[in-house]
Amino acid sequence: MRTVIPFDARNPKTRLSPPLTCEEREAFARIVLEDVLDVLAESPLDPEVVATEAVSVDVPLTVDDRSLDAVVNDAIDRETPLAIVMADLALLQPAQALSLVRTAGDVVIAPGRGGGTNALVVRDDVFRVDYHGASFRDHLAIADERGLECSVVDSFRLATDVDEPDDLLEVLIHGEGEAAEWLRGAGFRVETSGDRPVASRGASD
Amino acid sequence: MRTVIPFDARNPKTRLSPPLTCEEREAFARIVLEDVLDVLAESPLDPEVVATEAVSVDVPLTVDDRSLDAVVNDAIDRETPLAIVMADLALLQPAQALSLVRTAGDVVIAPGRGGGTNALVVRDDVFRVDYHGASFRDHLAIADERGLECSVVDSFRLATDVDEPDDLLEVLIHGEGEAAEWLRGAGFRVETSGDRPVASRGASD
Repeated sequence: MRTVIPFDARNPKTRLSPPLTCEEREAFARIVLEDVLDVLAESPLDPEVVATEAVSVDVPLTVDDRSLDAVVNDAIDRETPLAIVMADLALLQPAQALSLVRTAGDVVIAPGRGGGTNALVVRDDVFRVDYHGASFRDHLAIADERGLECSVVDSFRLATDVDEPDDLLEVLIHGEGEAAEWLRGAGFRVETSGDRPVASRGASD
Repeated sequence: MRTVIPFDARNPKTRLSPPLTCEEREAFARIVLEDVLDVLAESPLDPEVVATEAVSVDVPLTVDDRSLDAVVNDAIDRETPLAIVMADLALLQPAQALSLVRTAGDVVIAPGRGGGTNALVVRDDVFRVDYHGASFRDHLAIADERGLECSVVDSFRLATDVDEPDDLLEVLIHGEGEAAEWLRGAGFRVETSGDRPVASRGASD
């Protein structure tokens, strides 16, 4: 299935500052994107990256600096079925990609923590996206208004996008790609001495 | 399947202060527990509450103020298969209870966000729990050391325990039980005017 991976190449992941510097955030965002592409290569999803500026990837790339909504709605107009998968799903595994494809529905939504939409499958071009605000709820409402049948995929790995410092802990604990390795190389460890586990940063390897 | 629901009745959910007062945290924790019990009543899991002090529930209750580990390890010694489900899984639905039971393995683990273990199925009494620290990782290691086959259930609803202010947003967006109603009655709303959605509190209904 054709799959759009939107990627913001300009000053990405600002909420990860601190603990990451601007250069580190750029490097980390690229590595998470590569992890997502590596996982999708083992799945029925066929990714293409739509980035705000040129990036080097081994899949088809379109540079388009319009809003996320404009880019995705155009892609829906061009061809359905279409999947849209966020570029920061560092815990993604092939099983979750498969479950997106296998779940029936005109629209299939995987919610992200914090009210967002981390992955979509759109099988009817009547659907429109609106990623602003509490998009999970809004996407359910848009599907309902347009008479579309909507399914929700319940997955912790799909719900975990990496955009806040607490999310780094999830990558260290559950990540199986290069992003977890990169964090460990940058000195991040799971620290369990306090009230609850946190990702803390010591000396780099 | 026999299912232990540990419940801390003394000053529960301290990390929800603020935004909730002590009395509100107690009321909210009880309502989430009731939601969990209501959901399990529609599932193959047969719950009993083990609480640190007497609480009124419609299922068997044991009062035991020992540590969580001592209580659960004793329960494992008494009888397997045994499920252990945290009392604060406000997004739980019957489907997730069913997937715990249907997943094969000597030990079945549903991770919680933040490195925890939100639900377990233990089918071999050689297993021991250790909820302190990054328990998800530790439980995998304990199963491995003891030669037990371990499966992981990937579920956003099982991963979401309600113990921090940000978790209230998840309840408002995804909750289908009384806890979401209680929050709305207490004046909580999904506020989308800022950078990202938050649960903000206005006037009570």
